[in-house]
Amino acid sequence: MKEYRVGIVGAGGAVGLEMIKVLENSSLPVTELRLFATARSAGRRVSFRGEEYVIELTDPERFAGLDFALFSAGGGPSRQLAPEAVERGVVVIDNSSAWRMEPGVPLVVPEVNGDVLTEKGAYAGAKLIANPNCSTIQMVMVLKPIHDTARIKRVVVSTYQAVSGSGHKAVVELEEQIRAYVEGRETENKVYPHRIAFNALPHIDKFDETGYTAEEWKMIRETQKILDDETVQVTATTVRVPVFRGHSESINIETEKKLTAGEAKKILAETPGVVVLDEPSANLYPMPITAAGRDEVFVGRIREDFSVPNGLNLWVVADNLLKGAATNAVQIAVYMAEKNLL
Amino acid sequence: MKEYRVGIVGAGGAVGLEMIKVLENSSLPVTELRLFATARSAGRRVSFRGEEYVIELTDPERFAGLDFALFSAGGGPSRQLAPEAVERGVVVIDNSSAWRMEPGVPLVVPEVNGDVLTEKGAYAGAKLIANPNCSTIQMVMVLKPIHDTARIKRVVVSTYQAVSGSGHKAVVELEEQIRAYVEGRETENKVYPHRIAFNALPHIDKFDETGYTAEEWKMIRETQKILDDETVQVTATTVRVPVFRGHSESINIETEKKLTAGEAKKILAETPGVVVLDEPSANLYPMPITAAGRDEVFVGRIREDFSVPNGLNLWVVADNLLKGAATNAVQIAVYMAEKNLL
Repeated sequence: MKEYRVGIVGAGGAVGLEMIKVLENSSLPVTELRLFATARSAGRRVSFRGEEYVIELTDPERFAGLDFALFSAGGGPSRQLAPEAVERGVVVIDNSSAWRMEPGVPLVVPEVNGDVLTEKGAYAGAKLIANPNCSTIQMVMVLKPIHDTARIKRVVVSTYQAVSGSGHKAVVELEEQIRAYVEGRETENKVYPHRIAFNALPHIDKFDETGYTAEEWKMIRETQKILDDETVQVTATTVRVPVFRGHSESINIETEKKLTAGEAKKILAETPGVVVLDEPSANLYPMPITAAGRDEVFVGRIREDFSVPNGLNLWVVADNLLKGAATNAVQIAVYMAEKNLL
Repeated sequence: MKEYRVGIVGAGGAVGLEMIKVLENSSLPVTELRLFATARSAGRRVSFRGEEYVIELTDPERFAGLDFALFSAGGGPSRQLAPEAVERGVVVIDNSSAWRMEPGVPLVVPEVNGDVLTEKGAYAGAKLIANPNCSTIQMVMVLKPIHDTARIKRVVVSTYQAVSGSGHKAVVELEEQIRAYVEGRETENKVYPHRIAFNALPHIDKFDETGYTAEEWKMIRETQKILDDETVQVTATTVRVPVFRGHSESINIETEKKLTAGEAKKILAETPGVVVLDEPSANLYPMPITAAGRDEVFVGRIREDFSVPNGLNLWVVADNLLKGAATNAVQIAVYMAEKNLL
């Protein structure tokens, strides 16, 4: 592998800081690292592979000369700045939702559809690559091998999402509400419209006129784009729970071809990036505390759904800041480097 | 209404104590109240409608002369003691899972199938009546009116269940783990096999060889029994979340006849005991903190599921100790008293 100059835009945020750590532990040879953020984080010092770096104020001129720019700066900044980076010859891997559904922009989970970036792929030569939504990434990681084997007709998913998906301020909000509870004080809601401590909010991102949230539409549409199959029907209910880190998903799948639980388990156990934890008699199943800090996607409670001829129920957990965001973005860069696609 | 002599067996437990409060606020004229428990709670004083009662050690001889006995003493004691009460001419309303699936024993949610207890009902004259599982009760409350209108073919449900469903000791465990977190101490797991604070456990009750838990089977089989329709297919994934009180359910329904979201909303709004809270633009939807302390079942996020021709998604929340247990049991007694079925 040759060596790479990498920029991280939004380096001071919850995902940006994870990107630095994941990149540090990755196999990517990095000769130069430039960290960008708004005034809130600019000036902050960060260590990377034994050296200290200072986060600088985002300046498109400073994108010049980079091979990769990993963006985690939110939709608005990304709409504005990603094209500036691409114009300067930089490959952008964007974690926001701004570009995901844009025709011509590949939406990539390397283990699932990395090949769309290769020479013969549908998006060969793409300079702007979108990182999918956290909940979508962990779901397609398990859907893909099942789809390849038995063709998925329909998915019904309900999520149990951690507060870190709303950024660091939401982590602070849950912590403060917990502290207030223990100290017998009233709680305050700033990030969420209702208390999140000891509660569950069936509300992630904005509602539209259909009654669905943007998060639910992401799980539906991004899944079809990543699997490159609009015949896969998906419906979703996304819910925030008082968990710091790790999104869980209860996934019900109907397939065209019958798969037994044993067959599904075998297929998933052979899938790179997926770890099967499924020994109920030993209380072994994935949980947020299992996945926190880990790069893999964990699946358990794999069982046949007896309510339809060809049905499966799964319980899937992943670290929303890692495989759901930072890890997947860095894996895209590593994939492109390994395949020499720059 | 005539007057009634009521016993509560398991009066010292989380549900038993709620039964006393719910009975106190009910319309049932109670001339005598006898409270029974094991040695752990015997001797404890409880006030009821302005008088003080002492919980006595459970003694079947003392069941004689009662009209109703509300049992919340667990499956084992109920198997043993409920027949002793019935033999003494007492109508038993049992909150355990011991009798629910027993042929000849009605499984009742008054608003849904109370009529099975009437003179012309399938279980006319029954002396032993089972109170369904908490998760089942709140689900059938919304399924029934939809089933009556559009015939339900299949239900996929994922639950978000509060720790109070595991009894008072689980409430204490979550509180202690929260306190330990705030104080920077290690947490201990006694009630649950894993930490529940800031976590989600896809494990409620025991696993069997199918990979399902007893709780999941309860939601499947009890629903069919209450709706008196084995053609209603149900699959369930039940999950414990760090919430003190209030079970939430993400329910996906396929019907034979098409129902729009508007039609479903109208039907549910007209259902006694069900409250529709569904104004997403005003952040109005049911949550555990909405339902805690309330007797009704709350439903929101009512929307069409676009993945099938006739599909609906709903979000249903109820207080697991009230409508999910104590309230429903007392409502059965009130229903029988009002219909003069004793």
